[in-house]
Amino acid sequence: MGYRETLDTPCLVVHQEILEENVAKMADYARSRGISVRPHQKTHKTAEIARMQREAGAIGATCAKLGEAEALINTGVFDDVLIAYQVVGAQKIERLLSLMDKAHMIVAVDGTDVAQALSDACIDAGKTLDVVIEVNTGLNRAGLTPGEEVLELALALSDMSGIRLRGIMTHEGHVAKAANAAELDEIAQKAGKDLVATAELLRANGFQIEIVSAGSTPAAFSTTAIDGITEMRPGTYVFNDNNAFRFGRIGPDRCALRILTTVISRPAPDRAVIDAGSKTLAMDPSASKPGHGYVVEYPNATIVRLSEEHGVIELPEEAQGLKVGDRLEIIPNHVCPTVNLQDEMFVVRNGEVQADWEIIARGKVR
Amino acid sequence: MGYRETLDTPCLVVHQEILEENVAKMADYARSRGISVRPHQKTHKTAEIARMQREAGAIGATCAKLGEAEALINTGVFDDVLIAYQVVGAQKIERLLSLMDKAHMIVAVDGTDVAQALSDACIDAGKTLDVVIEVNTGLNRAGLTPGEEVLELALALSDMSGIRLRGIMTHEGHVAKAANAAELDEIAQKAGKDLVATAELLRANGFQIEIVSAGSTPAAFSTTAIDGITEMRPGTYVFNDNNAFRFGRIGPDRCALRILTTVISRPAPDRAVIDAGSKTLAMDPSASKPGHGYVVEYPNATIVRLSEEHGVIELPEEAQGLKVGDRLEIIPNHVCPTVNLQDEMFVVRNGEVQADWEIIARGKVR
Repeated sequence: MGYRETLDTPCLVVHQEILEENVAKMADYARSRGISVRPHQKTHKTAEIARMQREAGAIGATCAKLGEAEALINTGVFDDVLIAYQVVGAQKIERLLSLMDKAHMIVAVDGTDVAQALSDACIDAGKTLDVVIEVNTGLNRAGLTPGEEVLELALALSDMSGIRLRGIMTHEGHVAKAANAAELDEIAQKAGKDLVATAELLRANGFQIEIVSAGSTPAAFSTTAIDGITEMRPGTYVFNDNNAFRFGRIGPDRCALRILTTVISRPAPDRAVIDAGSKTLAMDPSASKPGHGYVVEYPNATIVRLSEEHGVIELPEEAQGLKVGDRLEIIPNHVCPTVNLQDEMFVVRNGEVQADWEIIARGKVR
Repeated sequence: MGYRETLDTPCLVVHQEILEENVAKMADYARSRGISVRPHQKTHKTAEIARMQREAGAIGATCAKLGEAEALINTGVFDDVLIAYQVVGAQKIERLLSLMDKAHMIVAVDGTDVAQALSDACIDAGKTLDVVIEVNTGLNRAGLTPGEEVLELALALSDMSGIRLRGIMTHEGHVAKAANAAELDEIAQKAGKDLVATAELLRANGFQIEIVSAGSTPAAFSTTAIDGITEMRPGTYVFNDNNAFRFGRIGPDRCALRILTTVISRPAPDRAVIDAGSKTLAMDPSASKPGHGYVVEYPNATIVRLSEEHGVIELPEEAQGLKVGDRLEIIPNHVCPTVNLQDEMFVVRNGEVQADWEIIARGKVR
């Protein structure tokens, strides 16, 4: 029997051939541009995919939270990790110092207070921490305005002997606002130019800036079109998702991860209820398509509503033969939070389950 | 030091006094109406709160998924569990049969195919399964239309000797559509009347209907105003959440669970970034208030945007003194998915951490 019959639902199914293709394509592109890949681990959170990324040439890993880094460093796959996040508070600084014994750590900073606390702790511990300054190229989340603001922090960091400035980074996630592929390219290239110009400003002021790091899967091929970007940190590209379709560059055939689900109720001819709700698909919206995911077998079906354990699908004419017990595969709107909801993913090749990969960094929010 | 300093963030904090008050109030109400409480375990997923509910008089538990029931039955707290969900597929029927050796199980059904499969498996195993028919009183998820449709299924069940019809149930979750408290009462009471009328129709046709079960925290005191409801299945009431405020009957002082979070960046005077994103707060919207949660210290602050590990707060004038490292407590929009994202909750009384409760049924989607 194939995986659609043997697996219990709802569960995560990873199509291994697609995953391999996605990892290889990004690695090939980066090589062709002479850019390092430091993939974000938040998308897959597994040792096995981390290993695939390293074997494809990744120079290190990116994590948001220390807990994610702890889980991944323990696997021994990566020993060079960028925490693309502000490390704030005594408990976290303690954990960071421990990680520095096991791996080369780089940490993002965007203010003097946080940097000073890191520096002081490192001096006490007799260590030196590499940092990159986080630059806000338009997402308006954390980070400093490109140019003078970054230079000011760089100058302040010069007085902190526990840390060493290695470069700058941005997350150009605001490309999600683009209406189409051309606009995406424009926004991403603007971010790339602002980042590179800031690196040049720092260099003109005597700083040695080795790392100029951008990161976002949708913008991966756009931001890096700007000369001077040294590193990219894509995450979602290993799986892709329903959100990735909207720019027309990626289709369902490039989506490696799907939710296998079972129809559990057929209360009306045009309504099916599946066993995947928000606890499985997550509530993230999609800019590609209304509803809570892409039904692979019936692209015109709409997942109109999720409660925690129920998904309600509005069925088009061609799907009305669906029966209770039938199975469907759904591409989630945003794959990263979907993975975070499960303990394992089932890996499929040639229609058979090959392996069961543990999501070791699931739920590591601290 | 108090819990706000000692706990690392983001984390779940449960204020024990409020929790105890919430559990007691629902138990008192149910007692005053002569109605049994069979609380839904999805909200807390812990052995400790299950025990509080039992000690307050709950006759049994409600779970959606078998995995949740397995985790809770293993604790030994409840030995009487309603699966308010369709059990579909051979793997799940096998697990249900195992659970029947450990606890008295009742299962919802809304169609003959699923019921027949359950009955056949029970006959093979020499067992008899208690079932309730799920009735759709307006949520339009699973369930049969009140009245004749339910009678038809009841008649079909009479021929299935592996199962025994014990009653009917509904989830009147569509009260969430109400614009105000009066409309909520009206919708809930309509659901209650339809359910009770259906029970009467079945009795008039010779069926012994012992269980007439309704369930939803916002409707808890409204549906059960109708005579003839024998059982209620509230879940959220133990904690309450930002969604509960909108009907004006519950305020923040009745919300037992909050997210403790740290400000990690202050990139602009009116913007703070916290370490709780969608991986902590969940993306569920609130009908009470725009944004992604209720900031206890600054009710006029708005959590305007979440990414996975960042929450972006728009700060009103009075909150602009917030500094990096400061801590905030947030009441989530929908508490159930928030709990599902964590492995533990920290229990606080008199400002001190008393205990760390494991969320044993987290992620049990199968």
